Amino acid sequence: MKDMIMETGIQLFGEKGFKETSIQDLMDELKVTKGTFYYYYKSKEELLKDIHLQYINRLVQHQESIINDESLNCEQKLYQIIYSLIHDIKKEGLTAKVFFREMRHLSDENLDVIVSKRDKFRLNIQSIVEEGIVADEFRSDLPADIVTFGILGIANWSYFWFQPDGEKTDEQVSKIFHEILVQGMNGPKNS
Amino acid sequence: MKDMIMETGIQLFGEKGFKETSIQDLMDELKVTKGTFYYYYKSKEELLKDIHLQYINRLVQHQESIINDESLNCEQKLYQIIYSLIHDIKKEGLTAKVFFREMRHLSDENLDVIVSKRDKFRLNIQSIVEEGIVADEFRSDLPADIVTFGILGIANWSYFWFQPDGEKTDEQVSKIFHEILVQGMNGPKNS
Repeated sequence: MKDMIMETGIQLFGEKGFKETSIQDLMDELKVTKGTFYYYYKSKEELLKDIHLQYINRLVQHQESIINDESLNCEQKLYQIIYSLIHDIKKEGLTAKVFFREMRHLSDENLDVIVSKRDKFRLNIQSIVEEGIVADEFRSDLPADIVTFGILGIANWSYFWFQPDGEKTDEQVSKIFHEILVQGMNGPKNS
Repeated sequence: MKDMIMETGIQLFGEKGFKETSIQDLMDELKVTKGTFYYYYKSKEELLKDIHLQYINRLVQHQESIINDESLNCEQKLYQIIYSLIHDIKKEGLTAKVFFREMRHLSDENLDVIVSKRDKFRLNIQSIVEEGIVADEFRSDLPADIVTFGILGIANWSYFWFQPDGEKTDEQVSKIFHEILVQGMNGPKNS
């Protein structure tokens, strides 16, 4: 049931917005009573927090399996992470929408939890960049923190434009972005 | 007066959110009567549209002055556009917030107007990329449309993290991103 409530939350918050969705709307859609809802969640915001948490936890978990894959070098890890972000928008579009758009409706306390997980996700990418610099895969004259924001920007922005049924697949888009970033981070040392 | 209403709209919509701000809130902040407000705007949404329109018009106008500057080559034009976006977040943070966050509260009709201006802004960047490919400034094996989304992503994402009073200036960040993008778009032809 908890999973079903979460699914319905994603659907309604994604389509109508968090503010615009009442607990009554959720109950109507789920065909359950108030008692059932409150058995699982203290409030609508608690449900929003769970949606955020599940989304970011899944991303971080997948990211760490990439990072720990010793068969990949840094630029290959970077590709896998870019692909996972763009693929996720394809697969989990509505959840991504709720994640990016409704964050400001979380309480400060819940926001802290989510932000620290987002930070972890970002700092994991930054470690790959730093590792790649040490391994001489990437140039050393660009600051790893700002480069990391660039990588996140290029991948996350896809949420605003990427059409899963469009001309280019998630894989093609990921390859193009990876190509630009890696070549850009390789720097002029080859010239 | 119209300017003052717009300023106050940006402030309240940016701080509290569009949905959460009433016309009464606007009047209280402005210390004007309902009559004054309705003399200038038919509705709160009309005001939101004006804020969006002013923001995107200013961006497009500045962009076109860059594009028409014949002293710049394509990669220099690209730098100026990236800088203008990141500088704008520094200068007009609250307006950018309203622009990115509150767009979904526009009516379909008003949204069409804004979206077509956003498209124009994007297609202007795409022309620079295409021109740069023809001029052999940029590699020709990457599709200009996806590359353009990458450029917009890297620059626009700054809105979510860039701290105007942080360690790096808007100029430094722009240079780093420009460096990655141009190097990436130069491609392996130098290697």
